[in-house]
Amino acid sequence: MNALTTFDVGYDVPARPGDALDTVQTPALVIDLDAFERNLERLRAAADAMGVRLRPHAKTHKSADIARIQMERGGACGISCQKVSEAEALVRAGIDDILVANEVRDPAKLDRIGRLALEARIILCVDDAEALPDLARATSRHGSTLEVLVEIDCGAGRCGISPGEPARDLALRIAETPGLVFAGLQAYHGPAQHIADPSERRAAIAKAVVSTERTVSLLAEVGLSCAIVGGAGTGSFPLEGGSGVYNELQCGSYVFMDADYERVRTEDGGRPGGFENALFVLTSVMSRPAQGRAVCDAGLKSLSTDSGLPRVFDREGVAYVGVSDEHGSLSDPGDTLRVNDRIRLVPGHCDPTCNLHDWYVCVRNGRVEALWPVTARGKSW
Amino acid sequence: MNALTTFDVGYDVPARPGDALDTVQTPALVIDLDAFERNLERLRAAADAMGVRLRPHAKTHKSADIARIQMERGGACGISCQKVSEAEALVRAGIDDILVANEVRDPAKLDRIGRLALEARIILCVDDAEALPDLARATSRHGSTLEVLVEIDCGAGRCGISPGEPARDLALRIAETPGLVFAGLQAYHGPAQHIADPSERRAAIAKAVVSTERTVSLLAEVGLSCAIVGGAGTGSFPLEGGSGVYNELQCGSYVFMDADYERVRTEDGGRPGGFENALFVLTSVMSRPAQGRAVCDAGLKSLSTDSGLPRVFDREGVAYVGVSDEHGSLSDPGDTLRVNDRIRLVPGHCDPTCNLHDWYVCVRNGRVEALWPVTARGKSW
Repeated sequence: MNALTTFDVGYDVPARPGDALDTVQTPALVIDLDAFERNLERLRAAADAMGVRLRPHAKTHKSADIARIQMERGGACGISCQKVSEAEALVRAGIDDILVANEVRDPAKLDRIGRLALEARIILCVDDAEALPDLARATSRHGSTLEVLVEIDCGAGRCGISPGEPARDLALRIAETPGLVFAGLQAYHGPAQHIADPSERRAAIAKAVVSTERTVSLLAEVGLSCAIVGGAGTGSFPLEGGSGVYNELQCGSYVFMDADYERVRTEDGGRPGGFENALFVLTSVMSRPAQGRAVCDAGLKSLSTDSGLPRVFDREGVAYVGVSDEHGSLSDPGDTLRVNDRIRLVPGHCDPTCNLHDWYVCVRNGRVEALWPVTARGKSW
Repeated sequence: MNALTTFDVGYDVPARPGDALDTVQTPALVIDLDAFERNLERLRAAADAMGVRLRPHAKTHKSADIARIQMERGGACGISCQKVSEAEALVRAGIDDILVANEVRDPAKLDRIGRLALEARIILCVDDAEALPDLARATSRHGSTLEVLVEIDCGAGRCGISPGEPARDLALRIAETPGLVFAGLQAYHGPAQHIADPSERRAAIAKAVVSTERTVSLLAEVGLSCAIVGGAGTGSFPLEGGSGVYNELQCGSYVFMDADYERVRTEDGGRPGGFENALFVLTSVMSRPAQGRAVCDAGLKSLSTDSGLPRVFDREGVAYVGVSDEHGSLSDPGDTLRVNDRIRLVPGHCDPTCNLHDWYVCVRNGRVEALWPVTARGKSW
């Protein structure tokens, strides 16, 4: 085997800066930089207009480059992530204000987060008073301080303590625990992000706002103020942002969009936030076995189908109709496709799709401008 | 940030050899080595008894360590894979006999495979005579030789030329192309692997055998013999292996099993091959927000749900009922789960699940015996 003195295009990286888009080795994860930058600006402007802060969710992109751009140019006060290892990856890359928008209970993970809090502002969610002794031990061992949000179940039915009195009582326990600072509420309603119908979505978030507001009031009565009342996502952020109750938005998918969020509509029939498609899986036609159909090289190992099959972006009449591990079946009734044609697919769900790839191929005007690593790919620990 | 002089457990690796299973950082991909070795032996013995060769599919595990074990102890004559970059990863790790059981059409990829054929025996599939000039150029440029199988569509409806005369004519073209050696037929019926009902599965494979046999005969009439008649998978291999037509089996999932293959039954109600569960996603309970339910830390970024939700392996009464990016919702009607409990999940589909992880944590008698990298993770190019 020949020694490799440089990165091999196709083995180590899908392309090099300067390459034309149609020479990128496929399947590859492609960012349209112009669209990406417009999406950044759209949410920044919307948050400014509503007078709320942005803490974009890095679980979407897992990229230190994108997190840095969100902080420097996208109006972000900090970054959200979901796992300790994501936070570690981001802190190593210089991000210094991170919310782990999740519960962490394993003592070994809490030890890591206690250590990480020496390097950056770290905020963590808690939904159970039994977690507090382990958190206190971790901060004490490292001489660090953790900010803590009480996660309330405001309708999502996943993690979170009940809003109101139970949340207030947990906050009081946090406030008296050494090494911990009570910092506010985590009130994220995940399923509501994906409700396609605007009035149903509005009703779900209205309920979440009511329980969150009541909890904030109960906390104020016992002298606890919420520096952060956080939540919201790409599907619902104008509702939380305009509620007067939330002060930090945690949208993630807005930078990219995906086929699932395309189905979420506003009252006037548009997309929430007006976000446009900035993320694609670039694929190549590899077989034309019969009239009316073709096979491309992007399957389950290049795109996640948990929220449906991908949408073919720029080929009229062509549809992605079947997926296997490394193949996509395309219907092409007009027989327009040729072998080696490149096609851009809008993934069904951007977050788990990005987590499959090692690189973002960043494109402008049909040329590769940069390669960004998917810094925290696979960091689910 | 402190310098890291060794791998950090939890950030870089999920565990170290010698660790107890219940201290492994989760979510983690775990191999039960005893079950894995028994599965290896089961298929080796079955192939021996049928007098056919084994060329196990590495698209399941993407691991050079497992490929090597399959060659050294599992009776494999070589390895199958699906993509050029998988083949490159395996050749770099010393595997010297590889079938890319797929079409490759991009000239840059063909150049890579032409170069790779200097280092190992490389066999490739073709379903279109238009591919041959590019293949010839790639071998000529590197002074290498490629063995080529004609892929026939024996019922799967994906890639592959029609069996019979079209396949024969393509084989003749291959045989006269410089740098290429006609090596036989690729006759894999993917969908048949997953037909739960044994008689329906038998009927589908019987049709595949008929078209394959007829093609072999037509080839013999023009003086072309098939060194390889390959195909079959974990769901159907006794049928192809016992057909007298196929001589190489390409089973992949047999080493691990998954929840989808558990639904595939033999006539006597057993599992094909008698394979047992050797692969698990180890997860931890991270929240007990309400009676009757719990939340664990393995979601879409740790397991693929394309073939359904995972099965809870060793917790009576507990079920995995909902998935989000980094969470799994568990129903636990008996309230038996405690925070930080470890649970083993049988993934719905092993191949794309393995592709999410960087490491296999190999366990015997409750202790970590080895860590194996997922060598070709993300290698879909």
